[in-house]
Amino acid sequence: MNGAESLLHTLYGNGVDVCFANPGTSEMQFVAAVDRVEGMRCVLGLFEGVVTGAADGYGRMLGRPAATLLHLGPGLANGLSNLHNAMRAQSPIVNIIGDHATHHRALDAPLTSDVEGTARPFSHWVRTSPSADTLALDTTAAVAAARSSPGRIASLIVPADATWTEVTQTLFRAPSADELVVHPDRPAERLIAAAGRMLSEQTATAIILGGHAGRAECLEVAGKIAAATGAKLLAQTYLPRVARGAGRVIVERIPFGIDEALKVLAGFSNIILVGAKPPVAFFAYPDRPGLLLAPGARVLELANVSQDAHYALEALAERVGAQKTPPPLAPLELPDRPSGAITPAKIGLLLAATLPSEAIVIDESITTGRTFLHATRTSHPHDWILPTGGSIGFALATAAGAAIACPERKVIALESDGSGMYMPQALWTHARESLNILSIVFANRKYQILRAEMSKTGVRSVGPKASTLLDIDRPTIDWVALARSLGVEASRAGSMEELSRLVEAGLAHQGPRLIEVVL
Amino acid sequence: MNGAESLLHTLYGNGVDVCFANPGTSEMQFVAAVDRVEGMRCVLGLFEGVVTGAADGYGRMLGRPAATLLHLGPGLANGLSNLHNAMRAQSPIVNIIGDHATHHRALDAPLTSDVEGTARPFSHWVRTSPSADTLALDTTAAVAAARSSPGRIASLIVPADATWTEVTQTLFRAPSADELVVHPDRPAERLIAAAGRMLSEQTATAIILGGHAGRAECLEVAGKIAAATGAKLLAQTYLPRVARGAGRVIVERIPFGIDEALKVLAGFSNIILVGAKPPVAFFAYPDRPGLLLAPGARVLELANVSQDAHYALEALAERVGAQKTPPPLAPLELPDRPSGAITPAKIGLLLAATLPSEAIVIDESITTGRTFLHATRTSHPHDWILPTGGSIGFALATAAGAAIACPERKVIALESDGSGMYMPQALWTHARESLNILSIVFANRKYQILRAEMSKTGVRSVGPKASTLLDIDRPTIDWVALARSLGVEASRAGSMEELSRLVEAGLAHQGPRLIEVVL
Repeated sequence: MNGAESLLHTLYGNGVDVCFANPGTSEMQFVAAVDRVEGMRCVLGLFEGVVTGAADGYGRMLGRPAATLLHLGPGLANGLSNLHNAMRAQSPIVNIIGDHATHHRALDAPLTSDVEGTARPFSHWVRTSPSADTLALDTTAAVAAARSSPGRIASLIVPADATWTEVTQTLFRAPSADELVVHPDRPAERLIAAAGRMLSEQTATAIILGGHAGRAECLEVAGKIAAATGAKLLAQTYLPRVARGAGRVIVERIPFGIDEALKVLAGFSNIILVGAKPPVAFFAYPDRPGLLLAPGARVLELANVSQDAHYALEALAERVGAQKTPPPLAPLELPDRPSGAITPAKIGLLLAATLPSEAIVIDESITTGRTFLHATRTSHPHDWILPTGGSIGFALATAAGAAIACPERKVIALESDGSGMYMPQALWTHARESLNILSIVFANRKYQILRAEMSKTGVRSVGPKASTLLDIDRPTIDWVALARSLGVEASRAGSMEELSRLVEAGLAHQGPRLIEVVL
Repeated sequence: MNGAESLLHTLYGNGVDVCFANPGTSEMQFVAAVDRVEGMRCVLGLFEGVVTGAADGYGRMLGRPAATLLHLGPGLANGLSNLHNAMRAQSPIVNIIGDHATHHRALDAPLTSDVEGTARPFSHWVRTSPSADTLALDTTAAVAAARSSPGRIASLIVPADATWTEVTQTLFRAPSADELVVHPDRPAERLIAAAGRMLSEQTATAIILGGHAGRAECLEVAGKIAAATGAKLLAQTYLPRVARGAGRVIVERIPFGIDEALKVLAGFSNIILVGAKPPVAFFAYPDRPGLLLAPGARVLELANVSQDAHYALEALAERVGAQKTPPPLAPLELPDRPSGAITPAKIGLLLAATLPSEAIVIDESITTGRTFLHATRTSHPHDWILPTGGSIGFALATAAGAAIACPERKVIALESDGSGMYMPQALWTHARESLNILSIVFANRKYQILRAEMSKTGVRSVGPKASTLLDIDRPTIDWVALARSLGVEASRAGSMEELSRLVEAGLAHQGPRLIEVVL
């Protein structure tokens, strides 16, 4: 057994059975070993951001890590921006990053770079495994790190010689990752008591849910607490994944805009954080606050993002006697399908009317999608995924991973034309793997959000040169041709009737489709 | 004047008049200021790798920096892989990276990351400018760093509040970058004497040229030395830019393959390095050498990559009395245009026959292009640019920068289908800026180089699962549709006659074109 086989055995033995890959020479032994070691499904991405974004989507849906396979520092670098989103989502990912052979590094060949230094800003855990013999132990530690508290980015750097050398030690019979996982902390009893006291006061209290607290099992308990105590449930602006639709507890999202967020938060002088941080502005603007709380608000951090939100909510429900209180659940109410000219609000209604049960929505619709969450709150039950780290270009890639994680569910990627152009290569992976993804691209042909942001940063007028950096309409991007060029069948919708028909066909189709919506 | 205006004034005042940009909210004051401060040409890239690759191409052609404008850690991360190539090419680049406002960083908003840590592995110089008042001084230092010894990556991180705050100090009347530039060292007299003695020995001597020693003015002096002393001129495998064709000194490139390189180098027991490092294998392989020298060879480093190669060569020419020796120059000899079925060798001949005078060739043709350099050595005079850092996906982006640097010259991007899919977004910038670029994509529909590399790393057989990571033919990528979707007119060539006609038309056309060559 060589090091590459030991690495693969250890990954698979610890439950990692999908590898999103964009390999190079230093990963060739790993690639060859996938035919000799049973069990690993390998999925090729034509760009590394597709690979890491897919691993994020996979981790968000299954709560366990996929592996990525990346080529040296530059290959890792191309995957970092989607790792940023994954970090902020607490997604478990094991990055396997090939490096030059140990003895080759000192020669400073052209592709030599500081791989550990490149990984560190976007990883919770970084280690270089020095040899074939250490790979089993280090891979186990990487998997355990990825599965810890509650999900982390573990980057394991593997020199090429470690993969081609025969293993002489039996270290691969190391402890399993299960034994090494650090489970999320539980909040102390006195914090639960303090939260209970807060909820018993005659003061408006909001419970802000973040991180993994958007999952159905957490929402249900939070709903009981809210029903029993009159507290308001709010969700952090960017939740990694939130269970929504009929039969689920409705939770209001804190808006992106500072004024809108302050308005929502103004009424609450008590705030209980569960898996969330105190609400802050996404960006700073001149003379605007950063921390978005009512003056004098008291904030209690019941569970931080690394702690056990589900336990915290259960314990709090018990403390306030809410365990048997039925939470109010969203009814199933579907709007009529709108007709006529396309508007963002009508698109929201169409989505609300057509989302299939158990759909997974990956939402990078930015300015077009402002009404989508409200519109879909009584749709068929579904999961909604947002770019937690604010790094754009994530939807098409993340959709690929979600579709591979949950092949029986329909994935709907809501993409903007500006954002989609960061990693359109993901469409090729949709086609290659016949993934059950309907991508809808909203083409307003500008970086619309930046026009709004510009005035907030104190800019009074946008001149012609600035406009060339905000508009992407010259030339126009033909998303239908782009998708087809990468193997995904696509159409363009010019009216709500057309869009409705295309969405219906796309949802019925088992496989990838793309719809371009020109706004 | 606010910080953004001070930044722009300082860039322009120090000769930086092109900015390749992919901005976000934190860069909006910079974007707005480009209409108020004269002189900066802004070029939008839809992906940050396009931005940094373009800056590399610009720097290689003009020897002075363009700026990039990047958005926070993730935006910078997307640009790192092409910065790796630029670092290895000694290209001057000034990265302007927006960050959250200083007071906003501690709030850990979603897009917060370690921007300095992200920049450091791919920059020679990193600094965060803390305020509007410091921006002029720090920007001057960044430009000076980029122009130093002989070209560097300078990454200046600019918090958003520094851009929107009014300048109170007059620091922008700081020393000019000219005064701060560190000029490349000149080699000591005793090294020149030692090189002269080496050349006077009755021993086969090779002069290996690297870095900036591939420029025409260096090659000419090197050619005189070779003619006067009988030394052999060799070029490092990946030169940032080499002057070639009729009227230029022919220099043989050290091959990529270890065996081929060893064969070339075997005959030389004396090696003089000028702007080059000792030749090493691109990758390590089991039981193969890393350092590629004949046993017992003596190596003299006359000038390292940061030193003044031109001075070193002139001084050596004087030492050996070669100043008046006419160097042998390549004649103008153009092959006939080949016909019939397309083969890589015939493509090389077609290029040789048709390269226009002063063409700039950006070569990422990888396995298809193995014969191109030999075939074109007697073509019309041209410059040839290679991916110095080995990070793939650079040709289309780098071509954009070269075309903006040299609008009067034809740029020819030789791209592979695998490599081209890393950053196809560059084509949109070709179209938007009407750049005079002919892109030729060689579609073998596989990562062909990896099949060859696999056996070198000790792999004996490639199984079906491994094959899915090496082949990109399912689905096939339609490069013609892809290019058109991004605004670049494109055609597919099925025979040498067709290719010949399309190349001719593409060269005659003032603007971007793409040809897909299916192999």
